Amino acid sequence: MREFLDVVTVDTALERIKKVFTHTDIEWVPLSESHNRTLADSISSPELLPAFTRSTVDGYAIRAQDSFGSSESLPAFLTLTGEVIMGRSTEFSLSSGECAWIPTGGMLPGNSDAVVMVEYTEKLDEKTVLIYRPVGPGDNTMLKGEDISLGQELFPAGHRLRPQDIGLMASLGITGVAVLRPIKVGIISTGDEIVPIEKSPLIGQVRDVNTYALAAAVEACGAIAKTYPIVKDDFVLLKQAMEESLQENEMVLISGGSSVGIADMTLTVLLDFPDSELIFHGVAVKPGKPAMAVREGEKLVIGLPGHPVSALMMFYTLCSPVLNPYPLRQSTAKLSLNVASQAGRDDYIPVAFMPDKEYVEPLLGKSGLMSILARADGYIHIPYEKQGIKSGESVKVTFFHS
Amino acid sequence: MREFLDVVTVDTALERIKKVFTHTDIEWVPLSESHNRTLADSISSPELLPAFTRSTVDGYAIRAQDSFGSSESLPAFLTLTGEVIMGRSTEFSLSSGECAWIPTGGMLPGNSDAVVMVEYTEKLDEKTVLIYRPVGPGDNTMLKGEDISLGQELFPAGHRLRPQDIGLMASLGITGVAVLRPIKVGIISTGDEIVPIEKSPLIGQVRDVNTYALAAAVEACGAIAKTYPIVKDDFVLLKQAMEESLQENEMVLISGGSSVGIADMTLTVLLDFPDSELIFHGVAVKPGKPAMAVREGEKLVIGLPGHPVSALMMFYTLCSPVLNPYPLRQSTAKLSLNVASQAGRDDYIPVAFMPDKEYVEPLLGKSGLMSILARADGYIHIPYEKQGIKSGESVKVTFFHS
Repeated sequence: MREFLDVVTVDTALERIKKVFTHTDIEWVPLSESHNRTLADSISSPELLPAFTRSTVDGYAIRAQDSFGSSESLPAFLTLTGEVIMGRSTEFSLSSGECAWIPTGGMLPGNSDAVVMVEYTEKLDEKTVLIYRPVGPGDNTMLKGEDISLGQELFPAGHRLRPQDIGLMASLGITGVAVLRPIKVGIISTGDEIVPIEKSPLIGQVRDVNTYALAAAVEACGAIAKTYPIVKDDFVLLKQAMEESLQENEMVLISGGSSVGIADMTLTVLLDFPDSELIFHGVAVKPGKPAMAVREGEKLVIGLPGHPVSALMMFYTLCSPVLNPYPLRQSTAKLSLNVASQAGRDDYIPVAFMPDKEYVEPLLGKSGLMSILARADGYIHIPYEKQGIKSGESVKVTFFHS
Repeated sequence: MREFLDVVTVDTALERIKKVFTHTDIEWVPLSESHNRTLADSISSPELLPAFTRSTVDGYAIRAQDSFGSSESLPAFLTLTGEVIMGRSTEFSLSSGECAWIPTGGMLPGNSDAVVMVEYTEKLDEKTVLIYRPVGPGDNTMLKGEDISLGQELFPAGHRLRPQDIGLMASLGITGVAVLRPIKVGIISTGDEIVPIEKSPLIGQVRDVNTYALAAAVEACGAIAKTYPIVKDDFVLLKQAMEESLQENEMVLISGGSSVGIADMTLTVLLDFPDSELIFHGVAVKPGKPAMAVREGEKLVIGLPGHPVSALMMFYTLCSPVLNPYPLRQSTAKLSLNVASQAGRDDYIPVAFMPDKEYVEPLLGKSGLMSILARADGYIHIPYEKQGIKSGESVKVTFFHS
């Protein structure tokens, strides 16, 4: 039984992966297809927003000083001299003591600097409006350029676009963006004991979970998953499958053959390719110790443990940050129970939010229960040097992909 | 200027929407296409998991009692009588004083009830294994049915399937699931001042943000967005556009014409259809008061404010829970600043997580700044009866769709 060749910490493993696997292919997509895509470059604003000073309410545009001192009992009397029309440039100006009706979004008349909400006014007759509350300069308006200034950075490179981000770009006339081309990821399950999911496993066999769970996890990162048939623990078959998947993808995830107990065959096969380099073999982490990575030319193979829970946790730890540079969502919560850990090992513990959303419950149970991950909302990380976390302590929760 | 006809609270608005709009069309998808889909029915396990008692480590299967009292200085001597092979049924049994090599995932021999990790053993010769640590019955094993029992509910109806959920179903031989068919949602922007995003707006005009932001938000709910050209504030044009979009979709989101200040035209058009019913007109909420809903036969039209920030916030409040019954992600955090609110109104305030993930910053600024939503991670809700939240108080954060 061969020992792990090059056991590293999670941080080191990730650093080394990022060093050998850089994905910078970009493509141009129209704004309407940019949702959930990752920006290849930072985006700066080509315009300012709003383009003109506008009202944020329905009411009367005035010169703020004309309302000073007004009250319910002593309203200001202003002369109604105009009406602002939505969608048109306002060409008139106000003089002292004058006001103009303005709808939400309308452009302020010249010399006006505030808007009084209609609720605090009364139209006495066609020419006279009473103002019952004072407003300050700028009140209920949005100044030209106040929202976004010209050239301002809107989003950094690597930002994953959400609905409101797309909205902001639409408002600035950005009709398309340069985004990262999705990485193609091959997925191979190996192991003599693995059978396809539609088969009834014989005693001793288990169904192929990883092909399905990893494909969905890859998709959740915005990458493209390509799955392959299960490969038996056989050098020739494994090599054939690796050749095919390396040709068709930029990254290959192979699960199963990486446990010391089963075989070193995966590693032997991977290092049998001409331009291959061991990146690491073994990670000081629980669960997932038998993970490995090998560079094959410009492509990368990550070997994940065969056990589905370990495989998925290692996917989150090692693959997700590479496939989707935008960090997973995090928040803090209090831990509902003590959790022990060993120093000298990174521990990743699945957790579920309690109904109050203030506490998370560590889902300990026996390692390897599939049902635990299905109950979990995310995980906490107990770093290398820590020996555990006490109940009630604040922890950082990383959310699983939805 | 017509007043709001039927102002309701957010809760009432949502209740009424859910009452008239029920979406129960289901479709069957293979497991490999079920990611992010919403279960139409609850799923119960057709099998138990694991199907046999298996080892969770590489080591030696033993009868736990044979290890009692063993230690580094006084190991137990066991006789090696067999080897468990992965993927095969283990046909032999152990007698007292015997052990068998077992890999992770292997099936325990008859009469064995625990596994000692290889790290705590030493193989003295072909026949003898030293055990340096005692184990209890069940240690390092997973009992038949311990993970999932037969008939156990795995997920409730309405659950949105994540990678690990798909993995759990794969392990149980569930090859396909009944999911909700995606709702088709038409999206119409209205307003004389709205121009397409590729145009340079004249003074007084603004670009069409809502078509893009709402389409992405609809997609983030797992629904299908169909967008339509911008419609001017014109009864005939609006009626034509509504007819077309109602024919092609189950729900239509129309934004713009719902502000009292602009026009009651949208409402007039909507109520002009034969089997139409006003669900509400006006919501006691900030931002988003001018929202409305009208039932058209079995279909639903939701009128959203024209302003993009209000429109998107109201989408989260009123549409998202209907399009995707699975609740948005939530966590708690502490508020970094005081936030005031009016009693008698639900307030939704965009917030951004501080780098420590423990505090959130309320993004107050002027209402209607597009840049605020782009900076926000989610929002907090100040309920109807509350007058504000103090700095340092714990708040529930609802995350925006990614």
